[in-house]
Amino acid sequence: MAGVCGFLERRQAVKLASLRRGGRDGTLVVVNRRLTRAVPVPQIADTLQQALESWDRCTAQLEAVYAKLNTEEGEGFELDSLELVSPLPRTYQWLDGSAYLSHVKRVRKARGAELPENLLTDPMMYQGGGDSLMGPCDPVCLQDEAWGLDFEAEVGVITDDVPMGVTPAEAAVHIKLLVLINDLSLRNLIPAELAKGFGFLQGKPSSALSPVAVTIDELKPDWRDNKLHLPLRTGLNGIPFGEPDAGEGMQFDFSELVSHAAHTRQLTAGTLIGSGTVSNEDVSRGCSCLVEKRLLEIIEWGEAKTPFLRVGDRLRIEMLDRQGHSVFGAIEQEVIPCPN
Amino acid sequence: MAGVCGFLERRQAVKLASLRRGGRDGTLVVVNRRLTRAVPVPQIADTLQQALESWDRCTAQLEAVYAKLNTEEGEGFELDSLELVSPLPRTYQWLDGSAYLSHVKRVRKARGAELPENLLTDPMMYQGGGDSLMGPCDPVCLQDEAWGLDFEAEVGVITDDVPMGVTPAEAAVHIKLLVLINDLSLRNLIPAELAKGFGFLQGKPSSALSPVAVTIDELKPDWRDNKLHLPLRTGLNGIPFGEPDAGEGMQFDFSELVSHAAHTRQLTAGTLIGSGTVSNEDVSRGCSCLVEKRLLEIIEWGEAKTPFLRVGDRLRIEMLDRQGHSVFGAIEQEVIPCPN
Repeated sequence: MAGVCGFLERRQAVKLASLRRGGRDGTLVVVNRRLTRAVPVPQIADTLQQALESWDRCTAQLEAVYAKLNTEEGEGFELDSLELVSPLPRTYQWLDGSAYLSHVKRVRKARGAELPENLLTDPMMYQGGGDSLMGPCDPVCLQDEAWGLDFEAEVGVITDDVPMGVTPAEAAVHIKLLVLINDLSLRNLIPAELAKGFGFLQGKPSSALSPVAVTIDELKPDWRDNKLHLPLRTGLNGIPFGEPDAGEGMQFDFSELVSHAAHTRQLTAGTLIGSGTVSNEDVSRGCSCLVEKRLLEIIEWGEAKTPFLRVGDRLRIEMLDRQGHSVFGAIEQEVIPCPN
Repeated sequence: MAGVCGFLERRQAVKLASLRRGGRDGTLVVVNRRLTRAVPVPQIADTLQQALESWDRCTAQLEAVYAKLNTEEGEGFELDSLELVSPLPRTYQWLDGSAYLSHVKRVRKARGAELPENLLTDPMMYQGGGDSLMGPCDPVCLQDEAWGLDFEAEVGVITDDVPMGVTPAEAAVHIKLLVLINDLSLRNLIPAELAKGFGFLQGKPSSALSPVAVTIDELKPDWRDNKLHLPLRTGLNGIPFGEPDAGEGMQFDFSELVSHAAHTRQLTAGTLIGSGTVSNEDVSRGCSCLVEKRLLEIIEWGEAKTPFLRVGDRLRIEMLDRQGHSVFGAIEQEVIPCPN
């Protein structure tokens, strides 16, 4: 057992989530591999933010709890995903890349915008608002259907403290956790907003995170070349919508995205960096957002048949491992009218 | 005394800062009106972020400490501004407006960019990176002088929790504190970055805040119509550079900026919203950033004579009240080479 434990400690394999109870940052719990049981770890860290700020000190202890939770029956309590908030309920920095070029090409074509000149060599990334990340089962309130609400299913990484000017190779060691992200977009607000030249603001409301954040070592061998090589499955109202492979068509890997973000400034522990909407050139894999599907419909039939999200629509984003087990748990959100 | 105290409590007048000691968020102190003495308030809140999260509960207590510090000799300890970090060393959200149209016009002219269509009716605002705000005396490390380092002297407000969709009138009550901001910009990285269409990222390194954050009631009668009507004085290498009035030429007041930011999402307590570079049409008031001065030189002499910041340059940003006393303390930063 000591040998196994030592091996696991070196691997730093662990799954983490946050319970709704506690303060604004929730309460950190270690979750077992099958996402059925969890245990709070106040002896290690009260919140995920705290753990990330002392990651090197915390990981061996977190992993020991994880190993025990996976092997010893009756450890922890039965997990109800409705008790979970976002693993990071708020972050000091949320940066979203757009690394899948088939997505960039389709979205820009859909809104009649030109492609950036250095598309193949200079990552696209915007600064998002991470002050109130939604939990995996939080409803999405929609003020006005004319805003054109869309989802974007993504993979994201969470870093510890990243010094300014790191190379991609140096950046890679600062990637500590992976999550799934639903980056919501208000498509009909975006063209006028981007035309002002200052990027996204009103066009990007709060994003939602998967129930669980997972370390890189837990994801091997599907994590390689700083990409996650598994299909990302999105469903809309119970019907499969897309399952593009997150490891295909990603022009810039996560180490390059982190290095790009840190080019002129340091990044604080807990920084969340998204891949951008996962998208493959192969259209038979489906899409991870409505705007791409609408563009493909326009090309095929001359008009978009799929509407943007409406009140009552239900969305599901999930990633299964090669054995068919859910890696991060599912983001399951319903669109509701805003109160009053 | 009880009457005075009651009056002051209703006014919620207080000045706040953060000491370097403590954790990543520093240690909250109340500072006296003349910025000479300070006292920690662990009985009220450990950090400014904590105070903002329970602002209504904290203000009367903070104000009582402030009143005592201003009236009773020997209260607190002598304040050394070098002990101070940013009042908020990090924030979950930093949004920067660009409300002074003479600045927008000059900067866009300088980089040959068009003016936005709805300049007079739709505020310009970008999402900044607030994960590591610099303290008032922190040096600015410059990796490469070719990046074109510039300062931007601004006024900023800090909010408590702001619900989604608030009107400007509703937004006004959520403005709790004011600060000065040095929003650093890498001018020569910005054109290529904005051309990609996703806004600022590498072109905007960490910003610095004034030593002290001040409540609105402390600033009356200079705070009116949701603007701060005092000149903002900037000096470069000991020479006056500009003193435009922050109350003039501000097309959108702070309540409109907060309402704009909250149009499609809530804002978490501690959200920092900047005015944009303070700028008056009257060029005799000088400028609050180098790029405006350079443009005025180009118009007058056919070429820019003032270079962007170089290692060794020293910057000072300050605001005096009508009696000539410093309101927020001074931002005093020197440009240094980056360590490596």
